[in-house]
Amino acid sequence: MIRFGLFGCGRIGRVHADSIDVHPRAELAWVYDPIESAADEVGKRYGAATASTVNDAIDDTRVDAVIIASATATHVDLLTRAVRAGKAVLCEKPIDLDLARVDRCWVEIAALNPTVLVGFNRRFDPSFREVHERIAAGDIGRLEQLTIVSRDPAPASRDYLAASGGLFRDMTIHDFDLARFYLGEVVEVYATGANLVADYIAELGDIDSAVVVLRGADGALCHITNSRRSVFGYDQRLEAFGSAGMLSVGNQHPTSVRLSNTTQTEAAGEYLNFFLDRYTPAYRAELDHLITAMEQSDQPSPGFADGREALALADAALESLQTGRSVQLGSP
Amino acid sequence: MIRFGLFGCGRIGRVHADSIDVHPRAELAWVYDPIESAADEVGKRYGAATASTVNDAIDDTRVDAVIIASATATHVDLLTRAVRAGKAVLCEKPIDLDLARVDRCWVEIAALNPTVLVGFNRRFDPSFREVHERIAAGDIGRLEQLTIVSRDPAPASRDYLAASGGLFRDMTIHDFDLARFYLGEVVEVYATGANLVADYIAELGDIDSAVVVLRGADGALCHITNSRRSVFGYDQRLEAFGSAGMLSVGNQHPTSVRLSNTTQTEAAGEYLNFFLDRYTPAYRAELDHLITAMEQSDQPSPGFADGREALALADAALESLQTGRSVQLGSP
Amino acid sequence: MIRFGLFGCGRIGRVHADSIDVHPRAELAWVYDPIESAADEVGKRYGAATASTVNDAIDDTRVDAVIIASATATHVDLLTRAVRAGKAVLCEKPIDLDLARVDRCWVEIAALNPTVLVGFNRRFDPSFREVHERIAAGDIGRLEQLTIVSRDPAPASRDYLAASGGLFRDMTIHDFDLARFYLGEVVEVYATGANLVADYIAELGDIDSAVVVLRGADGALCHITNSRRSVFGYDQRLEAFGSAGMLSVGNQHPTSVRLSNTTQTEAAGEYLNFFLDRYTPAYRAELDHLITAMEQSDQPSPGFADGREALALADAALESLQTGRSVQLGSP
Amino acid sequence: MIRFGLFGCGRIGRVHADSIDVHPRAELAWVYDPIESAADEVGKRYGAATASTVNDAIDDTRVDAVIIASATATHVDLLTRAVRAGKAVLCEKPIDLDLARVDRCWVEIAALNPTVLVGFNRRFDPSFREVHERIAAGDIGRLEQLTIVSRDPAPASRDYLAASGGLFRDMTIHDFDLARFYLGEVVEVYATGANLVADYIAELGDIDSAVVVLRGADGALCHITNSRRSVFGYDQRLEAFGSAGMLSVGNQHPTSVRLSNTTQTEAAGEYLNFFLDRYTPAYRAELDHLITAMEQSDQPSPGFADGREALALADAALESLQTGRSVQLGSP
Repeated sequence: MIRFGLFGCGRIGRVHADSIDVHPRAELAWVYDPIESAADEVGKRYGAATASTVNDAIDDTRVDAVIIASATATHVDLLTRAVRAGKAVLCEKPIDLDLARVDRCWVEIAALNPTVLVGFNRRFDPSFREVHERIAAGDIGRLEQLTIVSRDPAPASRDYLAASGGLFRDMTIHDFDLARFYLGEVVEVYATGANLVADYIAELGDIDSAVVVLRGADGALCHITNSRRSVFGYDQRLEAFGSAGMLSVGNQHPTSVRLSNTTQTEAAGEYLNFFLDRYTPAYRAELDHLITAMEQSDQPSPGFADGREALALADAALESLQTGRSVQLGSP
Repeated sequence: MIRFGLFGCGRIGRVHADSIDVHPRAELAWVYDPIESAADEVGKRYGAATASTVNDAIDDTRVDAVIIASATATHVDLLTRAVRAGKAVLCEKPIDLDLARVDRCWVEIAALNPTVLVGFNRRFDPSFREVHERIAAGDIGRLEQLTIVSRDPAPASRDYLAASGGLFRDMTIHDFDLARFYLGEVVEVYATGANLVADYIAELGDIDSAVVVLRGADGALCHITNSRRSVFGYDQRLEAFGSAGMLSVGNQHPTSVRLSNTTQTEAAGEYLNFFLDRYTPAYRAELDHLITAMEQSDQPSPGFADGREALALADAALESLQTGRSVQLGSP
Repeated sequence: MIRFGLFGCGRIGRVHADSIDVHPRAELAWVYDPIESAADEVGKRYGAATASTVNDAIDDTRVDAVIIASATATHVDLLTRAVRAGKAVLCEKPIDLDLARVDRCWVEIAALNPTVLVGFNRRFDPSFREVHERIAAGDIGRLEQLTIVSRDPAPASRDYLAASGGLFRDMTIHDFDLARFYLGEVVEVYATGANLVADYIAELGDIDSAVVVLRGADGALCHITNSRRSVFGYDQRLEAFGSAGMLSVGNQHPTSVRLSNTTQTEAAGEYLNFFLDRYTPAYRAELDHLITAMEQSDQPSPGFADGREALALADAALESLQTGRSVQLGSP
Repeated sequence: MIRFGLFGCGRIGRVHADSIDVHPRAELAWVYDPIESAADEVGKRYGAATASTVNDAIDDTRVDAVIIASATATHVDLLTRAVRAGKAVLCEKPIDLDLARVDRCWVEIAALNPTVLVGFNRRFDPSFREVHERIAAGDIGRLEQLTIVSRDPAPASRDYLAASGGLFRDMTIHDFDLARFYLGEVVEVYATGANLVADYIAELGDIDSAVVVLRGADGALCHITNSRRSVFGYDQRLEAFGSAGMLSVGNQHPTSVRLSNTTQTEAAGEYLNFFLDRYTPAYRAELDHLITAMEQSDQPSPGFADGREALALADAALESLQTGRSVQLGSP
């Protein structure tokens, strides 16, 4: 049985609490949130103690692992302290918005050979994972072109976005990691964007729509399309085009019902409408991956370096957006 | 070059005139219709002479073949005369509404070894034909269950239906033939129906909705679903389920456009909306089949006997509808 | 918190144990199985006590409900005893193979106004349920034709089938209930079948393939297609055709991955491959329905009478199969 | 009746000859090809005279229009001469590989107010056209993101490619025009490419795979994906994402047959496998558009300026590929 401490009881923290609850070999020991009522509610629901400070969990020798689902600004500090206390860590993305700070964090913890899983949940989505496995099995030959579509149903609030680090670090970062999942290292980034969705995003100096082009070390091309708003629901698709075929992942519906009538035929209903619906199996598989890695003394993946690289791609994309030039990346 | 006479310049006659027009080795020589203006119009459009009587075409030694697309009651007479004049014949379905009359017709012409193609156009639909070929190629192993869905967009007029011979002889007859295309001979028929669509059909003593169950000589089961009205358009589908897989044919759209918005996802537009649209390629392939058969001195298929058997199944279905019992069929 | 006793710890019993486990307001108190090791295993896994006899659960006043997932022959006795002890009951289908015995059972328990849910899980499948709701909402106008396809991946063992009561009572019974879910009462049944799949099924005097035609009290036609073997996986589909449109339910895949290569395009992988996969959400919704009904003192549905009617339809189908005639049903 | 002269009797010339043949108001008068046997063959097949020089057609006052389907290097000269002779022109893309030469051509002919249709056939594809119409009708609100996928089944020969002007001028030029069809003017181009398909393409200094990003004057983003080889067939798809929905165009199959078996489910067969199959209706609609424009004294579209702009985008893409920078375009 792996005992967990959970830092952060907001939307994503509750997803992890739920994954722990249904996992046969996991137990939620402590929950912490600066808003005490949130921690109480989650603690009560899942039978965990409410921590008055994060130390309650970090100092508890019966706690094996912590999940960092708190505000981004707190990640590095919590991650460092948890690793020093010998805990395994599942850290939500991004590790931090500042790449230099991420690198300093690694300097501090590297010698401890930490067990860190960064929360790029999409790698654990059954469809995306199947594509990864089938590429590895040779189903499409050599991967040549990768297309990722990622559009949110609706933009987050102004307050959320103001602290988000911008589209690339907040939203595209998932796609950067997914691209690396298939391409391996990325050596070139071009990015452009637009303000088409909401004025308040432009006022924040951020973009709401983007197209990004990546080149992998072995020559494959990738493009990513993002929008902060998709009126037909969460749009999460992927195509992997190779020398011997193409694997594609479509959007997913809660039911398989289709309607034909006088104005349309074979119309499906709404898609699974946001990450809590679409990626529930992914979050559960992610947690199971960490637990299994811990049990077998393996390193989980994506690890700290993957979190670092996705952020580096976001920074490169921002540079490209500002300069109109593609940005070359060295080896990590 | 095969020279054709066309009897009947209504909707289906024009389809055949058009097929002749685009066929590189066919020519329309004569057109006849009791409504002279209809014949004139088709003749002018396709460069054919307007016949004052059918004899103009039947007696014309340069005419190789005739297409009988006139009223059903005239089919047997025209077919008999054309065969006696040495013409090949493409006769629209049904040969006649009266099975005894069909059998007497055959007695009269059999010794002439006539070249007769009965107009069961669906056998020539590229999708239905592909299924036939792939079953023959073993793609689904042994055929065990066949499902045919056939629904018209809207019921024909009262006048048309009053002379149609009823649902089974007019509409299901296509499905009976299609079933025989895949199953071979049919040994058992059960049929039931309902009046759900239009009062005037019930007033005619006819049904507008039906379910028919067939058993093939080698044990396969088939069911057919019919309706005289499908608000979402012409519904023409088929599933062939076998010991090693299933081949299915879906409805077809004029374009591949799909729409996703706030109320639906992946909605297609209307289907190819009736036989003139859906079966244009089938009608052309049907004509080409006859021409090729004539050129190669082969018997075209489906032939006279197939036209007879489909009608026999319609009669058996009617008997079953009236008695509530399945009807056994002997060998033809 | 509703406390359950579970009778039968085989495949379906474990499904229910799992549903109880994840339900926030349910608890598994007792498990019983004549094979003690099976009961022990399930009891240990879900933290329930192993009963030495069913009385441990029936006599336990803290037990609110029992789930009867034992051999069919035991259902009536267990159901009767549980109802007398004041328990709510979730009884797996069929209530019994003998309609007379079912009716006697009802005579014994009717006065107790029992809370009985019969385990027709498909009514709780999200897709089938959505179709039901949308028909009620008028999405397709009046229901005119219902098509149900139900094929198992592979036939059960000879031993299982020998005790199953035959295809109609064992397998089609689900489809009979599903038909009633949409059609309401059924007034006419025609059924035919074939032996196409496995010799040992014929040796048992049973069929392995069937087509059934039903007529609802308000005139709608329904046909059901069954096979004991579908090499491409569990085939569970439905089409509801109405005066204003059609709702269809397709098969479901574990992922949304599609492959295009030199031999095929847009090929999906295998379907959710049998009821444990396809109907997991249905089983959970079924249990939740019972719990909610108990909490609100409502009668759950489908109830005892529905279990009785589905069996009556199976008997009528068998009569039709043997006589070749459609069978009329009176009001229940 | 519009009488045509055809210059060039290769693959694309024959497509046009066929379109003329089936058009009720068009007639092919002259055919010319430097390879006389090719001209003879096409002339004989469609009943046209074989010209010994292009002058036979250009000087023939009964000729209303010419189709320029000859080698690219001859386009400007033929177009200029035909316009001067008062003919309408359907000129295959590209007008020329050299933008300066195109501009000089326009200087020479502009005063003649010529009727020129440039052969961007995809604008006439029924699916692409439907998307255009539905965007205009407001079906997806404001267009924000456009995705074009265009992959050929297999690369052309080394000889063809050596004279092609490179991927952007030869292949992507269709996509540039299609982008302009939806976006209107394009103000920014970024392009990158790779050599993944065939060594001989790299040896020619050309690329075989590309990703291009465009920005429209009103802010919409577009990306184009190209490959010279797609093993699963001609890959021609489009997505138009807007503020109120998304319209997508999928690939198209010759039949609607799908196969499910032990290794896959719902697998379609091959796509319409190259432009002669996929775009037959487009070529016919293109010709009809020219004829109708001539009859109504309208300017056909896309016209000379559109041919010029697509080439300018190709040049800009090449510059971007070489510099790694996005290229800004002024107003045309």
